[in-house]
Amino acid sequence: MSSTKGLEGITATESSISSIIDDKLTYVGYDIDDLAENSSFEEVIYLLWNQKLPKLDELNEFKTELISNMDVPKEIIDHLKSYDLSTVHPMAALRTAVSMLGLFDSEADVMDEAANKRKALRLQAKIPTVVTAFARIRKGEDPISPKNELSFAANFLYMLNGKEPEDIEVEAFNKALVLHADHELNASTFTARVCVATLSDVYSGVTAAISALKGPLHGGANERVMAMLTEIGSVENAIPAIEKKLENKEKIMGMGHRVYRNGDPRAKFLREMSRELTELTGQSKYYDMSVKIEEYIKENKGLPANVDFYSASVYHSLGIEHDIFTPIFAVSRVSGWLAHILEQYSNNRLIRPRAEYAGPKGQTYTPVEER
Amino acid sequence: MSSTKGLEGITATESSISSIIDDKLTYVGYDIDDLAENSSFEEVIYLLWNQKLPKLDELNEFKTELISNMDVPKEIIDHLKSYDLSTVHPMAALRTAVSMLGLFDSEADVMDEAANKRKALRLQAKIPTVVTAFARIRKGEDPISPKNELSFAANFLYMLNGKEPEDIEVEAFNKALVLHADHELNASTFTARVCVATLSDVYSGVTAAISALKGPLHGGANERVMAMLTEIGSVENAIPAIEKKLENKEKIMGMGHRVYRNGDPRAKFLREMSRELTELTGQSKYYDMSVKIEEYIKENKGLPANVDFYSASVYHSLGIEHDIFTPIFAVSRVSGWLAHILEQYSNNRLIRPRAEYAGPKGQTYTPVEER
Repeated sequence: MSSTKGLEGITATESSISSIIDDKLTYVGYDIDDLAENSSFEEVIYLLWNQKLPKLDELNEFKTELISNMDVPKEIIDHLKSYDLSTVHPMAALRTAVSMLGLFDSEADVMDEAANKRKALRLQAKIPTVVTAFARIRKGEDPISPKNELSFAANFLYMLNGKEPEDIEVEAFNKALVLHADHELNASTFTARVCVATLSDVYSGVTAAISALKGPLHGGANERVMAMLTEIGSVENAIPAIEKKLENKEKIMGMGHRVYRNGDPRAKFLREMSRELTELTGQSKYYDMSVKIEEYIKENKGLPANVDFYSASVYHSLGIEHDIFTPIFAVSRVSGWLAHILEQYSNNRLIRPRAEYAGPKGQTYTPVEER
Repeated sequence: MSSTKGLEGITATESSISSIIDDKLTYVGYDIDDLAENSSFEEVIYLLWNQKLPKLDELNEFKTELISNMDVPKEIIDHLKSYDLSTVHPMAALRTAVSMLGLFDSEADVMDEAANKRKALRLQAKIPTVVTAFARIRKGEDPISPKNELSFAANFLYMLNGKEPEDIEVEAFNKALVLHADHELNASTFTARVCVATLSDVYSGVTAAISALKGPLHGGANERVMAMLTEIGSVENAIPAIEKKLENKEKIMGMGHRVYRNGDPRAKFLREMSRELTELTGQSKYYDMSVKIEEYIKENKGLPANVDFYSASVYHSLGIEHDIFTPIFAVSRVSGWLAHILEQYSNNRLIRPRAEYAGPKGQTYTPVEER
């Protein structure tokens, strides 16, 4: 049993979407380094859903379709205005709103491939609108409608902050979206596949994935990194604070990864973005602290930084509230969830493992009065 | 790869809740036959969550707690009244309402064991109220509040139909709830465990499980059995209709099961209930048809009836609309989901298998203008 706990090392399915081999991450065979440096997030979504890069006219058409589907039904906005957002977990709000989106999609239960792709596009388009509407309504601000002429990344920042973002912000956010888009059978993606292997619908699969991403062992790491950096407060305090945490057997978030041995190939891009953006916004201390902590943990625990470690200071520099970091993860990762959901449908089998029974056996039932 | 597709035969976890060994089903070591014949559903919930049968005072206290938690927040009822229920899948409505219940539980993200048990009790108590409110509001009727003096099974039928049920109806429905309460690592239960192994909350786990149960390969079988019986229409037509379906390579729902070789131990109880209830309601033809079909499929395909086959005519005889069969499955199975969620928390590890990459490798990125 111990060898399969958490299904570690067990191959659960074939997949043609992303691969993690020898510490290299690819999407459909393209190295993540090339995609991070060159691709728009829209292009990456297209790649994940179609297993090929789009030609120019395909990409333009896809972008237009995507952006023009960003508006959400009025009922979703009314719902977000109907309860006290300050008391709920943002991912619980997203889970509910996405489930509700399915109630307003007349194709929700149409299961042919074309309909499933249309639903995928609508979900990908509407989730940023839900997340930004949540963040604004919670602050007492009105939600902002998307602009057709902006990219996906730019629209997110525009709908969040109410002003068109700088180019460097769009570039950084686009890169973060590209880097988080897919990651093989991570826990939320696997949840989505187990869910839809019953031939449940796309909205159910994404709702289940959001439910999993909500968990702090999966989605919450960069938020906790930011809490740690905030608590540490200064570059000088970084090493003493970390030493104390290690003494207290506290886990340092954002370090190491179950599937990478020598390092997370996505981390270097976020490190560089963190350097640029913290400098731009006069908050270099978060980058400097992060570098010191990374070096110390690598030297003393042998663990390199993962994708979550520097994304904390990147998102913070973009003016994003810390508890919106995980919903942003969903804004990107939904592209991968949807790719895996479509792939699961295309060659489906119910996912139904077994449990090894470890409880009492052969118990004799006695009536309640005789117990 | 083919050997693990659908994780067939793979042990994903230890569990002390239910076991399926040599075609015998037990809950915490008690044979399902003894529980089906003797137990109230409340007693079975207690057993699954506490790994022991309750003493009389424990059972009475548990029943009181459970029934007194059945009322749902007004906002859930308002939500169900706010959109056109006739156009949505009842499980999509349930998925959304249960996710929304989490928004109104101030303990939703309190993760200690006692709080998780309190949330489990609230979810178990409120799901029947949501399902019956949905069914009534859809028909233009007002939801009915639970009665403290009725059992869980009786309350469900009372809240659904607006009149107190007959003893034989309560007995049959209670037995159906007991028989569906848990079934080891079925697809929805496994979805819930993968979800909460990220340490996501109880509401997320149950929302994910409902999302999986919605799929026709998991939750929809008895609804499709009933559609088949309705289509066949008469006892005389049963064999000719089945022969034609087999000729057309159609799957006959409710027959066979991946984990039982010689038969589903739950089926015999539902068969007997079907006989009694269809006779009582003057609809014996559905029972007679079912027996003929079962015998024919067993003889010709070697497949015995499973739990879903006779539950179709049982629920139909209880006056339940056919698309409410799967929500009723949830009313029972949520007890098992919650037991598995609590067990997962108690000895957790992230569930994160691997995929075998089957896509193109070493692709060279070219700018979009050059494709």
